[in-house]
Amino acid sequence: MSGIITLTTDFGEKDGFVGVMKGIILGINPKAKIIDITNEIERQNIDQAAFVIKNSFSFFPEGTIHIVIVDPGVGSLRRIIVLDCINYVFLAPDNGVLKYILSEKKNFQVYDVVNKDYFLKNVSSTFHGRDIIAPVSAYLSLGTDIEKFGPEISDYIKGESFEPFKKGNKIIGKVIYCDSFGNIITNIKKDEMPVKYQEKYISINIKDLNIRGISRFYSDGGKNRPIALFGSSGFLEIAIYLGNAEKSLDVKIGDYVNLSFN
Amino acid sequence: MSGIITLTTDFGEKDGFVGVMKGIILGINPKAKIIDITNEIERQNIDQAAFVIKNSFSFFPEGTIHIVIVDPGVGSLRRIIVLDCINYVFLAPDNGVLKYILSEKKNFQVYDVVNKDYFLKNVSSTFHGRDIIAPVSAYLSLGTDIEKFGPEISDYIKGESFEPFKKGNKIIGKVIYCDSFGNIITNIKKDEMPVKYQEKYISINIKDLNIRGISRFYSDGGKNRPIALFGSSGFLEIAIYLGNAEKSLDVKIGDYVNLSFN
Amino acid sequence: MSGIITLTTDFGEKDGFVGVMKGIILGINPKAKIIDITNEIERQNIDQAAFVIKNSFSFFPEGTIHIVIVDPGVGSLRRIIVLDCINYVFLAPDNGVLKYILSEKKNFQVYDVVNKDYFLKNVSSTFHGRDIIAPVSAYLSLGTDIEKFGPEISDYIKGESFEPFKKGNKIIGKVIYCDSFGNIITNIKKDEMPVKYQEKYISINIKDLNIRGISRFYSDGGKNRPIALFGSSGFLEIAIYLGNAEKSLDVKIGDYVNLSFN
Repeated sequence: MSGIITLTTDFGEKDGFVGVMKGIILGINPKAKIIDITNEIERQNIDQAAFVIKNSFSFFPEGTIHIVIVDPGVGSLRRIIVLDCINYVFLAPDNGVLKYILSEKKNFQVYDVVNKDYFLKNVSSTFHGRDIIAPVSAYLSLGTDIEKFGPEISDYIKGESFEPFKKGNKIIGKVIYCDSFGNIITNIKKDEMPVKYQEKYISINIKDLNIRGISRFYSDGGKNRPIALFGSSGFLEIAIYLGNAEKSLDVKIGDYVNLSFN
Repeated sequence: MSGIITLTTDFGEKDGFVGVMKGIILGINPKAKIIDITNEIERQNIDQAAFVIKNSFSFFPEGTIHIVIVDPGVGSLRRIIVLDCINYVFLAPDNGVLKYILSEKKNFQVYDVVNKDYFLKNVSSTFHGRDIIAPVSAYLSLGTDIEKFGPEISDYIKGESFEPFKKGNKIIGKVIYCDSFGNIITNIKKDEMPVKYQEKYISINIKDLNIRGISRFYSDGGKNRPIALFGSSGFLEIAIYLGNAEKSLDVKIGDYVNLSFN
Repeated sequence: MSGIITLTTDFGEKDGFVGVMKGIILGINPKAKIIDITNEIERQNIDQAAFVIKNSFSFFPEGTIHIVIVDPGVGSLRRIIVLDCINYVFLAPDNGVLKYILSEKKNFQVYDVVNKDYFLKNVSSTFHGRDIIAPVSAYLSLGTDIEKFGPEISDYIKGESFEPFKKGNKIIGKVIYCDSFGNIITNIKKDEMPVKYQEKYISINIKDLNIRGISRFYSDGGKNRPIALFGSSGFLEIAIYLGNAEKSLDVKIGDYVNLSFN
């Protein structure tokens, strides 16, 4: 264990929910280092949290515990799970928020967190982040055996990949995320491209827009001229230099993006 | 002292005010652990900060120092006080921001922070968080005797509870907070309820709305159907599953909530 | 080195960019203490970041490393520089974001960060904060010699001061920042004032508004009555007690502010 615990939640900052979780963790493990990945996931948006944690987790030292909470079903029958991938541990409701991690990993175990010895004494039905996940993460960071928190299970919500569809020399992808600069992230990775291709002959279609060729960096684009490039998460992005592509092109998550090579 | 210092302020993040306070604290006590409860209290909203700190402070390890700053009177005659409750210490302007803590605690002392030896050399008249509260909190976390910061006082702004009004078999309460999920928090606690009552026979009235019975968790509610439940802070809440009750019901802090049992 | 690394960026919190940088830093230097000054600089607003870091850096312990990233030219030919001022080290793109620091300091060296031994293995062209600046800051905090990161250079973007213009007994200044309380900060410092002057005879003009005299603190102002005072950063501010001067007066950065003494 690295002693690092990260947070990816939709709690926002205003209400003090995240601060309270940190207080509980430090009460159990005073040496824990707690890092916010983000607490500004759009409320109840499981897909967005799944994408952000997938892009972020591997930049932390091995032995980091990643907490991911977007949890509309809090208090009901949905389970809380620990996903043990050897080099990283994830703690989250079993609602799909770890789906992209699960589709990427091959060797892992999933446990159902049920042992009340590691919970706060009074568990509310509306804030399991505070009453269950915070103390469990702290005990995990102290090296408590994962088996102690509950039994291994196999009927958790399964992984899901976001590979694009390929047809002849076309790739049909989708918008999977828009970052807060307004860059539009698609599910098309560089290694999906044909073995031999020339970047300048790629044609990208999104909504009514056609972009020819792949740029290298944002400032390759002129003002108000959308460009396509492979971004820091490895995915094809549509961007407008010093602008906001998401708003200018009125794009939404799920919109189609077509690539052709000619 | 736990070495933990928390922050509950209306400073926001944009201007760097909070970062600067942390720099000063770490210059005096390099081992301090500084945790944000929230810096997103609505500007100048003393009641909101009073509610958030009341709900949060006890989840931190004993010996934690809680800084609370919402301070429209900064630089004027209002005092800065240290509230010593033995297991926790609070540092705040004497303007009511600690009123709910004071109403809850029985054994405590209040001190007027006046000893300039513990302030920055140049005290501005607009940013006492930086010039007074940050360095004082750091010296407190190092174990400096509280008496050294100034004299004990008794004419501080007193505690205030938010107990609802009871009349026959009715409880007349108020909305005291809306969290950022839009859940409406009232001042009615579970232990205010009659000794014998059945949850399904409770009738809750807020504005034109009537809710029958108490739910267990948010997902008990259907879409667009408001429910009532006891939330994580112990108070009765009105919520809409996957929705925003505050906005949908157009509720404001101070609005009445009536409970009857029949 | 104090082991402290600060962040002043326009990354926001939503996407996890800042969290990922912290993960990389802690992987290289597990003892680093990372403090956010702000990650809410307005997107691509170099001037705003330059002002915030100028006002904040000196409140941190000596040996602090300050990261400043507002970087519309990421991936292109713009350089990344280390500015070594002996007591503080700054790490930023060479695009003017350090201009006010450079105008204030006399003894310093600037280095071009080019040594890939200190970068992540795969450097993207869109996120140098993660791939270059985070690991370099971590190695700096471990005490790695600054010369190792690249050669000293002299053709960096130069300092810029924001002194007002003086003419007879008038001072013609400008709005340089509006904080998130709506206080309007000008470039007129207290030490720009004539040696002998009486605060009550100062006349301040901004847009159609005339303010007579200098107040001591915000609550000197009545509701809806703008006042002028010297704020916590030493600059003349226009403020409205319990209000928002920026919005009420519809002021923008760059607007003129005239002082006369009579």
